[in-house]
Amino acid sequence: MKAAVYHGPNKLEVADVPEPDPTPGTVKVRVGYNGICGTDLHEYYAGPIFIPTEPHPLTGQQLPLTMGHEFSGTITDVGDGVTDYAAGDRVAIMPLYRCGRCPACRAGNYNICAQIGFHGLMSDGGMAEYTVVPTDMLHRLPDNVSLELGALVEPMSVAYHAATLGEPSPEGTSMVFGAGPIGIGLWFALRGKGVDDVFVVEPSATRRAAIEALGARTLDPLAVDVPAFIADHTDGRGADAVYDAAGVQPAVETALACVGARRAMVSVAIYEKPLSTPLLNLVMNESRIQGSLCYTAPDFAAVIDLMSRGVYDTTGWVTSIPLDDVIDEGFEALHAGTKMKVLVDPTGDRDCDGEHTGP
Amino acid sequence: MKAAVYHGPNKLEVADVPEPDPTPGTVKVRVGYNGICGTDLHEYYAGPIFIPTEPHPLTGQQLPLTMGHEFSGTITDVGDGVTDYAAGDRVAIMPLYRCGRCPACRAGNYNICAQIGFHGLMSDGGMAEYTVVPTDMLHRLPDNVSLELGALVEPMSVAYHAATLGEPSPEGTSMVFGAGPIGIGLWFALRGKGVDDVFVVEPSATRRAAIEALGARTLDPLAVDVPAFIADHTDGRGADAVYDAAGVQPAVETALACVGARRAMVSVAIYEKPLSTPLLNLVMNESRIQGSLCYTAPDFAAVIDLMSRGVYDTTGWVTSIPLDDVIDEGFEALHAGTKMKVLVDPTGDRDCDGEHTGP
Ligand SMILES: [Zn+2]
Ligand SMILES: [Zn+2]
Ligand SMILES: [Zn+2]
Ligand SMILES: [Zn+2]
Repeated sequence: MKAAVYHGPNKLEVADVPEPDPTPGTVKVRVGYNGICGTDLHEYYAGPIFIPTEPHPLTGQQLPLTMGHEFSGTITDVGDGVTDYAAGDRVAIMPLYRCGRCPACRAGNYNICAQIGFHGLMSDGGMAEYTVVPTDMLHRLPDNVSLELGALVEPMSVAYHAATLGEPSPEGTSMVFGAGPIGIGLWFALRGKGVDDVFVVEPSATRRAAIEALGARTLDPLAVDVPAFIADHTDGRGADAVYDAAGVQPAVETALACVGARRAMVSVAIYEKPLSTPLLNLVMNESRIQGSLCYTAPDFAAVIDLMSRGVYDTTGWVTSIPLDDVIDEGFEALHAGTKMKVLVDPTGDRDCDGEHTGP
Repeated sequence: MKAAVYHGPNKLEVADVPEPDPTPGTVKVRVGYNGICGTDLHEYYAGPIFIPTEPHPLTGQQLPLTMGHEFSGTITDVGDGVTDYAAGDRVAIMPLYRCGRCPACRAGNYNICAQIGFHGLMSDGGMAEYTVVPTDMLHRLPDNVSLELGALVEPMSVAYHAATLGEPSPEGTSMVFGAGPIGIGLWFALRGKGVDDVFVVEPSATRRAAIEALGARTLDPLAVDVPAFIADHTDGRGADAVYDAAGVQPAVETALACVGARRAMVSVAIYEKPLSTPLLNLVMNESRIQGSLCYTAPDFAAVIDLMSRGVYDTTGWVTSIPLDDVIDEGFEALHAGTKMKVLVDPTGDRDCDGEHTGP
């Protein structure tokens, strides 16, 4: 079968590899779509970072391996002992390996497991016609959720998890800094939680246009005094929940000038270095900065439910490409900023009704 | 009567001023002791900052005015309409003026009132033989709490309020960065909350010795790899609650490397400028930075209760001086670091038993 195999920086090859067989407790999935995300770009241009160069303690795998941790598909075969899934089941995959023993795992917060691993980074993933995953990674997709949306459950769950940690109230004002895929996911998650008064702060006109087309209100921080605008808009109360999905200095500074008393700015960005942070803002109104990482199963379930209720929409920000084009139309296009979110389609399969952009 | 009157930077004069009379709803207090804190030092050396140069909206006062917002005393006279206090009552004063109308006040969080004012910064305070305060500032002192301890209720409440926001558990490990008066207050508050496993991180040998004499365990961050020590001490769990009462870059950096998953670092410092902050640490274990400011009445009540139960001790870190020595033995000594906490005694009154250092 065809697979995109990572050998090291700038070396991702679409190669012919053996089809995997399900082992006990696992299923074989024919991949529908597999998203490329920022983590994948880091591995490609500056890796290996997460991809192990010696056998990983939880998976035993190391490079070269097939990339892809954001994917959906259809089960074609099940391993010994698997009774709750069958061939034909359409699924999204929660690609986490966790140790199960560390304090975080024991508290149910396996998203911050000390030994966390990802299917598609620490084992052969979804940029292939088939991949084999343990059943505890599977989430069934309702009939009205397309495989294309199914591949977005993973990044949308990152955003949904963060949205929850911000404790937004439907009556208050929420703010999202950064309109990349996670920022868009935050906007959908807030909508799904019944928060109508949301502002997305984004300096790029292209990204503002994309999220505005989905129905969001935006602010250009280069043109508007954002803290003054929010103070006025909220009668001095400040924002009820603020999300930083930008990860840069001006966003954090502005976000902390907008967050309301005793409310949270949630950090859901990979900060490449320490940022100069106005901690005095936190003291003066007893607000907080709350970190957010990945997701757990209830986030997956919530996102799939919202997808089935028509909250998510791929129009204008998601592009599907064949596996053969993964470098030029995938990694390079994302790196250049000419595309926002790319789904690789390794099989050419389509859902029956020809409708791929979600409800 | 004698009072320390602030006229502007470096101009604090012990002068003879008229004795104030209680107005309706207020009481006249003969001051027992009045503490000098960092805020007072800022006003003296670099002010006016909080002290108004035009009539304050809540008090109508402006400089020159009598300083002193951390004090205890004995009521000598009550104004019209005051029935729940009488001459002879020993009290600590919660010196907050609040607007009562802003969103924070309406939510009961008047410690972060948008218009907050302090008795002793926005009105004539406790560095005088007498001062007049509204009854909603009064907290009765039990017989076994000395007036000296009573003057410490205010700064100890700042620390107690912060300690609570950190949600420490008695089974976990807590850490305090900085062993100044607020750091000492955090240590007492944690003890009072039943947290036995506390480490105080402080680079100054003098300050370490002072808090060790009270019973605290300390770490010298210049000699010990603090995050490695805590990781080892907690079996990799990290600290359950971390408090920054130092307000400097290395403390924040180290604190964020020690805080456990989904736990808080509480900021209870006046950060003079934005600090380079490793926000990625927050993301990786979903920890948070929580700001803390001042206190509300339940903090005062809790501290007074703990004082009455013998938790607080002034030995080795608190010095009392006469009002006439307020510059040399007060402000200058604190500024030079030769004293840690100074209480001004404007009246020479003593509690009957001659014991001033608390239980
Ligand atoms: Zn990803
Ligand atoms: Zn674990
Ligand atoms: Zn003070
Ligand atoms: Zn107020």
